[in-house]
Amino acid sequence: MNGALSLLRTLRASGVDTVFANPGTSEMHFVAALDDAPDVRGVLCLFEGVATGAADGFARVSGRPAATLLHLGPGLGNGFANLHNARRARTPVVNVVGDHATYHVALDPPLASDIAAVAGALEGWVGRADTPDEVAERTREALAAAYGPPGRVATLVLPADASWGDLTREPDLTPVVAGRPRPVDPVRVEEAGRALRQGRTALLLGGDATRGPSLVAAERIARATGARVIVETFPAVMDRGRGVPQPERLIYLVEFAQSQIQDLDHLILVGAEDPVGFFAYPGVPGRVTAPTTTVVTLASPGDDARGALDALVESVGAPKVSIADPGPAVTPTGALTTETFAAAIAATLPEGAVVVDESNTSGLHLYGRTVASAPHQLLTLTGGAIGFGAPAAVGAALAHRGRVVAIVADGSLLYTVQSLWTMAREGLDVTVVALSNRAYAILELERSRVGVGGPVGDASRHLLQLTDPDLDLATIARGLGVPAVRAQSADELVGALRRSYATPGPTFIEAMLPPGLS
Amino acid sequence: MNGALSLLRTLRASGVDTVFANPGTSEMHFVAALDDAPDVRGVLCLFEGVATGAADGFARVSGRPAATLLHLGPGLGNGFANLHNARRARTPVVNVVGDHATYHVALDPPLASDIAAVAGALEGWVGRADTPDEVAERTREALAAAYGPPGRVATLVLPADASWGDLTREPDLTPVVAGRPRPVDPVRVEEAGRALRQGRTALLLGGDATRGPSLVAAERIARATGARVIVETFPAVMDRGRGVPQPERLIYLVEFAQSQIQDLDHLILVGAEDPVGFFAYPGVPGRVTAPTTTVVTLASPGDDARGALDALVESVGAPKVSIADPGPAVTPTGALTTETFAAAIAATLPEGAVVVDESNTSGLHLYGRTVASAPHQLLTLTGGAIGFGAPAAVGAALAHRGRVVAIVADGSLLYTVQSLWTMAREGLDVTVVALSNRAYAILELERSRVGVGGPVGDASRHLLQLTDPDLDLATIARGLGVPAVRAQSADELVGALRRSYATPGPTFIEAMLPPGLS
Repeated sequence: MNGALSLLRTLRASGVDTVFANPGTSEMHFVAALDDAPDVRGVLCLFEGVATGAADGFARVSGRPAATLLHLGPGLGNGFANLHNARRARTPVVNVVGDHATYHVALDPPLASDIAAVAGALEGWVGRADTPDEVAERTREALAAAYGPPGRVATLVLPADASWGDLTREPDLTPVVAGRPRPVDPVRVEEAGRALRQGRTALLLGGDATRGPSLVAAERIARATGARVIVETFPAVMDRGRGVPQPERLIYLVEFAQSQIQDLDHLILVGAEDPVGFFAYPGVPGRVTAPTTTVVTLASPGDDARGALDALVESVGAPKVSIADPGPAVTPTGALTTETFAAAIAATLPEGAVVVDESNTSGLHLYGRTVASAPHQLLTLTGGAIGFGAPAAVGAALAHRGRVVAIVADGSLLYTVQSLWTMAREGLDVTVVALSNRAYAILELERSRVGVGGPVGDASRHLLQLTDPDLDLATIARGLGVPAVRAQSADELVGALRRSYATPGPTFIEAMLPPGLS
Repeated sequence: MNGALSLLRTLRASGVDTVFANPGTSEMHFVAALDDAPDVRGVLCLFEGVATGAADGFARVSGRPAATLLHLGPGLGNGFANLHNARRARTPVVNVVGDHATYHVALDPPLASDIAAVAGALEGWVGRADTPDEVAERTREALAAAYGPPGRVATLVLPADASWGDLTREPDLTPVVAGRPRPVDPVRVEEAGRALRQGRTALLLGGDATRGPSLVAAERIARATGARVIVETFPAVMDRGRGVPQPERLIYLVEFAQSQIQDLDHLILVGAEDPVGFFAYPGVPGRVTAPTTTVVTLASPGDDARGALDALVESVGAPKVSIADPGPAVTPTGALTTETFAAAIAATLPEGAVVVDESNTSGLHLYGRTVASAPHQLLTLTGGAIGFGAPAAVGAALAHRGRVVAIVADGSLLYTVQSLWTMAREGLDVTVVALSNRAYAILELERSRVGVGGPVGDASRHLLQLTDPDLDLATIARGLGVPAVRAQSADELVGALRRSYATPGPTFIEAMLPPGLS
């Protein structure tokens, strides 16, 4: 058995059965080993950012890491942005980055670069296997680090000769499994209980505490104590729709978020971190929480947030609750706007869908509208590195029986548009709704917020608009092998969505919104 | 004047008039400052790899650096692969990477990551301006490092508050200029002269020594001494075509390259490095040069290679030479193959064109055929990170009056296909010839070379082919705003090329080659 096959067997023994790959010469033995590991699925991606985003989406939905296969430093660089998002989502990912043979590196061949330096910026685990026997050992370390909790991005550098050389002993194939979350000290539960009894208090849910059972526990605590429940702005994966408690969401715009929670006496963190502004703005504090608010940590990332909530339910004596019926989602008609688009999604969403939301400014109404949708899971852009939505949908669809709906702003889509080809090739049940407003509208908004004065000149406007020429997203999708339609009205969008959900395989819908911020 | 404007003014004072930008919130003041710096052109790219590849292509053609504008660590990550190519080409590039405001970084907001760690892997210059006054100072250091010689990738991290804050003093706007190349010690010229008089000797030209005057000097030396002239496998920019000496090229495949130069007693390096295999292969030495060959360094990168060649011409008393006429390039007809495609390019190429070659396996015959073309410049993939060709053509076209022809393999094109939109928007005179063979054919070749035995299984074949579905490259190009045609025969390709050269603005030609390696 060579190093490459030992790697695949070790991954498979620990629950990793999917590899999102963009290989090169140094990874050829890994590719060939897939012929001898039929229980591992190799998925070709035409750009590394697709592979890494897919690994993130896969693990958020399945709870199990996928592997990526990347080609030296430049391959890792191309995958970096979506690995950054995975890092911020605390998603388990195992990257395998091929390198030159150990003895070749000293010659400084053209593709050589410091892979570990790039991987180190992901602040997860970085290791290297210099011999075939070490491959399985390092892979086990990578798996343990990736699984956590909390989940991490683990990067294994795999020199070509460690991959092609034969092992001298059998690899250890006992499974590496996810660790148990750290139990929360009862003192913290008591402290949270005291906060709930004194003044205005909110629970801020994040990390693992955005799934159904935790949302229900938080709702019980809120009803029993009068506390508010707020979910972090960008949850990694959240249960949503009818029958699930629907907490308010911490607002993205920091000034609004500050207003939203300024009157709190206590903010109890449950799997979330003390929130900060996505960016700094002149004269605006960076922390969201007011100086007069006491922050109480019930569960940090990696802690057993759900157990802590259950203990808190008990401690405050919160009775069971029934979840209010939000009423039916109303099917929209008329012009296509950010409101009617959100309503169209909400009204048609199939039960059990996974929604990947990278709608940015156009998605303002989506969170509110989908309260009335069929139960579904929501994945959001945790790390702010755009180009996440379409790749994550690839991974989610491979981890999930049911429809995946990727709602992606036009600017975001263009970073990783190659995702569409993998959807077509793998026959994935993904509906991509591309929101065409022909602008980096978020930047039109941010420009004024960061204090740029005066009128917008031609030179700077030129850098914020996606016009001249307009992108024809549906045509691009067809060129990548995905059937595509344009929706010019709410009615057309509703029809296109319904047809898509009834048709196996991917569909691309270009939703023509009014230009720019609207 | 704020930090952002001081940055633009400092760049402009030192010859940098073009910024390839993919901005985000933290770069908004830089974007706004473009309104006050009308002599700097901001060019929007829809993906950072387009911006960095364009900066590389721009500087290779103009000799002056362009700047990039990138958004934090993920933006730099997306740009890393083409910066790696620029590093290996020794191209001067000034990256400006926006960061959070200095006081915001400590809060670890979602987009924060270790930008300097990623930039460090480019082994150029990395600096950071923490105050508005420091911006111009650090920019001057970045410019000096970028210009070299040799050229380097310089990365300036620009916190948002250093960008938006006002300077307390006038910035120093005296120009930073390229340093003079290091003169070569006469001892080295003598040593090279001795090597030329003893046994079988070749000059290996690389770096700056692949331009016309150096090629002529090397040809004179060769004719006077019987030495061979060889050019490195992947020159950054090389003068080619009728009237220019056309040295043999060091072969990419290491075993063939070893055969090519195995009988040499001396190899004289002129701006090139001692060549090594692109990858390691089991049982094949990594160095190309035979152990029995003495390597003599006439000029290292950054040395005055041309001056050294002139001194060597004098030292060996080499008379002037006339360059043989290769005869007319023959216009091909019939089926489209790797041979007729190369012949079609060669026969139609307009005088003064810039050819960006990322044709990979399909380009086997291109170097030989274009000997008979009109005089032109050739840019190649120096660092092996594919996705270079189309972005480099964007930059080359902005630096160059005349036609740019980007010859790009289908797999390579898909990494940075967003380049096409920028070509359309800026009205660039680029002809993109996309070579469709529906495979990562280089990997089909490499698979056997790295010693993978046995038959190719379905799983591994699945990862090397770009089929199921086929990519429709012409349709993708149209979606991105570039007029596109398909060429199914040599005659169609010749016609499409001629029409393209006669039409201002970009054209996309999808050349349908036989599948895979052929």
